Amino acid sequence: MELTFGQYELVYNAFSLGIAAFLAATLFFWLGLSQVSDKYKMAVVVTGLVTFIAGYHYLRMFDSWGDAYTAVDGVVTSTGVAFNVAYRYVDWFLTVPLLLIELILVMSLTRSETVRKAILLGGAAALMIALGYPGEVSGGIDSTRLLWGALSMIPFLYIVYTLFIGLSESIARQHENVRGLLNTARWILVLSWSFYPVVYFAPFVMSLDGGQAQTVIEVGYTVADLVAKVVFGVIIFMIAVRKSQNEK
Amino acid sequence: MELTFGQYELVYNAFSLGIAAFLAATLFFWLGLSQVSDKYKMAVVVTGLVTFIAGYHYLRMFDSWGDAYTAVDGVVTSTGVAFNVAYRYVDWFLTVPLLLIELILVMSLTRSETVRKAILLGGAAALMIALGYPGEVSGGIDSTRLLWGALSMIPFLYIVYTLFIGLSESIARQHENVRGLLNTARWILVLSWSFYPVVYFAPFVMSLDGGQAQTVIEVGYTVADLVAKVVFGVIIFMIAVRKSQNEK
Ligand SMILES: CC1=C(/C=C/C(C)=C/C=C/C(C)=C/C=O)C(C)(C)CCC1
Ligand SMILES: CC1=C(/C=C/C(C)=C/C=C/C(C)=C/C=O)C(C)(C)CCC1
Repeated sequence: MELTFGQYELVYNAFSLGIAAFLAATLFFWLGLSQVSDKYKMAVVVTGLVTFIAGYHYLRMFDSWGDAYTAVDGVVTSTGVAFNVAYRYVDWFLTVPLLLIELILVMSLTRSETVRKAILLGGAAALMIALGYPGEVSGGIDSTRLLWGALSMIPFLYIVYTLFIGLSESIARQHENVRGLLNTARWILVLSWSFYPVVYFAPFVMSLDGGQAQTVIEVGYTVADLVAKVVFGVIIFMIAVRKSQNEK
Repeated sequence: MELTFGQYELVYNAFSLGIAAFLAATLFFWLGLSQVSDKYKMAVVVTGLVTFIAGYHYLRMFDSWGDAYTAVDGVVTSTGVAFNVAYRYVDWFLTVPLLLIELILVMSLTRSETVRKAILLGGAAALMIALGYPGEVSGGIDSTRLLWGALSMIPFLYIVYTLFIGLSESIARQHENVRGLLNTARWILVLSWSFYPVVYFAPFVMSLDGGQAQTVIEVGYTVADLVAKVVFGVIIFMIAVRKSQNEK
């Protein structure tokens, strides 16, 4: 894999920004716990878990990136140690179910509906990530990537569709001063989740290869993660604060 | 880039002082959270986030400085690994919007005014930093630096002017026992923020180059960061404590 110095630095700095943003967001959520009532504490704790786990994985990716390349006098050479793509997938494997739980908790469904939704959506999410992984590690921008990506799109579409409809129905049942926020949450969710497959398939559309493809993928997923976990988390936090005030 | 041993050590020690001061300030703010009422908790949490994020970036800058040079027997040689200037800009990119939020929260504006101000000022701040960055990384003390710096001054002047006027108006509306503190906050803000462009342009005014220029820039920004984040944060914390007492 050949990387220019600019590409190497861009990915490095994106990972570093991720570490700072995820760890700061975690502290923001947890320090704000006293502002929400008991009923919503779990949603806020879980919101912080998502960013905490991401912070950990970005620290590992940062180090792995540093181990994979050396940049001396502006020339980047690969050390032969592979950059570990799996950190990202392990991160998703843990955080996507948590994000779903976070969302379900804040929708205040009945208990049986909560359990049913959690199992169906959680299973679909695990499948989506498991199917995307072989395409991602294969490394090339070729038919292997295309095939696994296409398979992963099936559970993905099921999840996004179910959440979008589920959230729409739940919005109607909520106090009007949180409807706007729930609607924002719904759109951030759909847009940020859709950005992942866009990034995955971008090298095909833009005919990129090698270092360019890798840079677009790593920076793209980082942007998607920041929106899906931090921006989305802040909205969830605000919903929890407002609902706590309503119910006081 | 040639650095004398004294310059090398000065920058190293400035970064180390930064790490200690930012992390200590973070703990000071967060340990003091129980002293402010719910209404001001978010302002104090955010004040601590600013110093937390700065602490992280100073740790990275400290390491990057160590990787970029070796100092043996009082002779400093460059290793060929570039000192990563981007950490500072990523730090500003995250902390400047948070500082603005901190300030807006403590001014207790109406919700719509808060959102409007946050968007306008946040956008201007992002632009200011994005325009300064190409000038800073170009490395030279030349017309590239001058041009980008001049462009960055436009959003900068807009922000400082808006905040100064906004704070003046808000001061009149506040209880008299916090007016003095708000006035101090206003002046610390204007002076510390103005110190950044002063540092940026200093090598031109003082006709410095190479190691001298780099030392003045790194130490200068560190001093500016300490005042803009720690000293300013302490004032914000005191305002929050006093307002909480007033409203009890
Ligand atoms: C559809 C699709 C994908 C979807 C990934 C998604 C949707 C990931 C979401 C991650 C989140 C939300 C993390 C936040 O914590 C893959 C695996 C890239 C492979 C290509 C097809
Ligand atoms: C005007 C100007 C600049 C202004 C920088 C400022 C004002 C940074 C403020 C940072 C703060 C307040 C950080 C605290 O967390 C640059 C980018 C140096 C480039 C030259 C022109």
